[in-house]
Amino acid sequence: MSTQIDSFVQANLDAYIVKTARLCAQPSVSAKGEGTHACAERVVEILTQHGFRVQKFATPGNPIIVGRVEGHSARTLLFYNHYDVQPAEPLELWTTPPFEPTIRDGALYARGAKDDKGEFIARLLAVEAVRAAHDGKLPCGVTFVVEGEEEIGSPHIAEFVREHTDLLQSNGAIWEEGGIDPDGRPEIGLGRRGVLSVELLVETMTRDAHSGGAHNLPNAAWRLLWALATLKGQDEHIRIPGFYDHVRPPSAIDLKLLEAKPHYEEWTRKTFGVKEFVRGLTGHALNRAVFEPTCNIQGITAGYQGAGNKTVIPARASAKLDFRLVPDQSPDDIFAKLREHLDKQGFSDITIEWHGAMWPSKVSADDPFVELTARTGAEVYGLASVRNPMGGGSSPVYAFAKPLNIPVVTCGVGYANNRTHAPDEHVRLQDFQNAARHIARILDGFASL
Amino acid sequence: MSTQIDSFVQANLDAYIVKTARLCAQPSVSAKGEGTHACAERVVEILTQHGFRVQKFATPGNPIIVGRVEGHSARTLLFYNHYDVQPAEPLELWTTPPFEPTIRDGALYARGAKDDKGEFIARLLAVEAVRAAHDGKLPCGVTFVVEGEEEIGSPHIAEFVREHTDLLQSNGAIWEEGGIDPDGRPEIGLGRRGVLSVELLVETMTRDAHSGGAHNLPNAAWRLLWALATLKGQDEHIRIPGFYDHVRPPSAIDLKLLEAKPHYEEWTRKTFGVKEFVRGLTGHALNRAVFEPTCNIQGITAGYQGAGNKTVIPARASAKLDFRLVPDQSPDDIFAKLREHLDKQGFSDITIEWHGAMWPSKVSADDPFVELTARTGAEVYGLASVRNPMGGGSSPVYAFAKPLNIPVVTCGVGYANNRTHAPDEHVRLQDFQNAARHIARILDGFASL
Repeated sequence: MSTQIDSFVQANLDAYIVKTARLCAQPSVSAKGEGTHACAERVVEILTQHGFRVQKFATPGNPIIVGRVEGHSARTLLFYNHYDVQPAEPLELWTTPPFEPTIRDGALYARGAKDDKGEFIARLLAVEAVRAAHDGKLPCGVTFVVEGEEEIGSPHIAEFVREHTDLLQSNGAIWEEGGIDPDGRPEIGLGRRGVLSVELLVETMTRDAHSGGAHNLPNAAWRLLWALATLKGQDEHIRIPGFYDHVRPPSAIDLKLLEAKPHYEEWTRKTFGVKEFVRGLTGHALNRAVFEPTCNIQGITAGYQGAGNKTVIPARASAKLDFRLVPDQSPDDIFAKLREHLDKQGFSDITIEWHGAMWPSKVSADDPFVELTARTGAEVYGLASVRNPMGGGSSPVYAFAKPLNIPVVTCGVGYANNRTHAPDEHVRLQDFQNAARHIARILDGFASL
Repeated sequence: MSTQIDSFVQANLDAYIVKTARLCAQPSVSAKGEGTHACAERVVEILTQHGFRVQKFATPGNPIIVGRVEGHSARTLLFYNHYDVQPAEPLELWTTPPFEPTIRDGALYARGAKDDKGEFIARLLAVEAVRAAHDGKLPCGVTFVVEGEEEIGSPHIAEFVREHTDLLQSNGAIWEEGGIDPDGRPEIGLGRRGVLSVELLVETMTRDAHSGGAHNLPNAAWRLLWALATLKGQDEHIRIPGFYDHVRPPSAIDLKLLEAKPHYEEWTRKTFGVKEFVRGLTGHALNRAVFEPTCNIQGITAGYQGAGNKTVIPARASAKLDFRLVPDQSPDDIFAKLREHLDKQGFSDITIEWHGAMWPSKVSADDPFVELTARTGAEVYGLASVRNPMGGGSSPVYAFAKPLNIPVVTCGVGYANNRTHAPDEHVRLQDFQNAARHIARILDGFASL
């Protein structure tokens, strides 16, 4: 079976790279509302051509497309993808224009080539390879969910899934954003942290004042700073009472997997010019720390920021924060506790704006679906799969995993340097081919799990 | 003598208002280098016309003009003024254009009408009034120092005075920026706080990172915030060891004067929309607090400040601060102590940039020169003078007071609402006239102090 699959993928690789290039040539920048609806139409056409029954659902933003096809068994595998892309700017840093896909040095260069149009098309290649190996009918059902707002935080996907649990009923899902690690090992992602994004705002006066009055007039920057200082000290411990109440520690197998996972301390140190990691972490402790929730300041805005000095007492100050949350923390709960904490600390004048949230989500490391993905990955890449129990970032995995009650894993076309979200984004042809081979093997084995 | 002075001032008021208007018609915006050299020439002409021996000293910026004339006695009174003005923007908020001086409602409207061209010309009117009352010769010598960079922090005046102590030798000086308080009482300023302006900069990485890595990567905003939090807590006490070592508490007479001075709590509360003053201060304690040095955050720059959120860990953060200093604190000393403190707190990675400094300066409240100024003020305005022992802001008073070893007081053409530095700046004709009468009386009495 594997030989047939691999032959099909090999024989059809060029055609699917061309298919990817055509889809990339259609801009679909959700942040600017550029071309997203036209791109959604292209996705509908493509899924229809591949024999999927396609539905396009309008949202207040960009449409969500669902394509379904039955298989021999009643089991269904769901693919999550998105057709929108990040803005291409700064354009001058692209070797070739972002929406004029170009193949060079064994890779396809274009905005979206990897994230997420290449990922999407590689999966279609896998579907066809499995069909070809099974006389045209898949051994399991396949459902594609392709949304158009991933790059702006997926504001409508969670509600959509909740409202369409019957339509999306399935037995497992493969997320976007997977690939191989810097040593070429297939990396299987088992979970993602949640996130709560907020903005803290304080106003101590109705207008700025001259700093000659600083012995009397309250400074908003100082007040904000004192409030923030109650949230976290240099030990990185978050001081909001109850913040850690629902933290589920990593399991024994998670810890083993983290230990087995390379830590890339030197690479990270060099890439970001870090002299010292938080809490003096080194080696595998850097991996382990992903199970710690965080309180991150994204930015602070206060007072005069031009050249030189301005003798001013700022009347207003604000800070944007994100809390990365681990299972089983909940953004609602953390938001309530943050409010209560600031009130108790005497900062009830500080406004907290809710800017968005995602819930943490994690599949068990010994789930049979994880085993299948890891085993087939090792087969394709010739190296043992690395199971990553938890990713540091956040994604709407929870929006599917929870209401559909399914395991979700990550694997795909990526490698360490796809320049995702950056100029010269690309997908390597070899990675595209291997991802198709890997996904095809998962499709092949999924029915009998 | 007073009658003669007052008659002369009355008779010549219009001519000197016209003289002021002409000087205001010449733009001299030091921040933009607009018209300052042409204005300096006008000042040279005016002083020369009034019988002063005039010298123009080049600086790396705008020239400093010194005009001197002898009197009957060997004693000399020095006037400090400046010919540069603040930028006039926003222009659309001016009722009439800033450099087209207009008289309406008993006031002259123009950029510089009060600050500081009106002040300068009112003093010339006083000089002529005293001359007229004394058959053409002043009872004391008069030296004008008129600089062109006051609105950009007087970067060259201190060095100039140090290098010309013989030329500027005198027995007392009248500063700019005086006037009457909201109740019409002449306010005599006895001192100004010093200031140390710095910028704190921290870099934890060579580039920003995704906030999904916040469990490992050091955040510059947090690091800056923790460092700032060691400088001052909510009690407003500055925690730099030795910071208060050289603070000279207000004298018994200073405290009495502060008690006698109106505190304008309600006015300040309303003007700035303040709910609570620092340390819960109210009433006369608001006045008393000017003898407390301050640590003010002018602004903080860190990370993402646009709309919504950006999942970023800032690699760099900075804060602009000013410390207002009281006698006998010194900016050099405070700068050294700040550095030492941050080092001891483990923040030796934080860079401190020196952005500028002024030293505190204060004349004793019972100095005979202060007595003369207060007594003559009461005579002119018909209300007891308010002696203000210390102004909250800073000015280069120290640059004269220290090397020349002279008492310096402030009195002049201002009132509570001149809109100095703002659109529709103006000087009231009545205030101009009274200031000339007041200055003339001081000139008249200065020889026999």
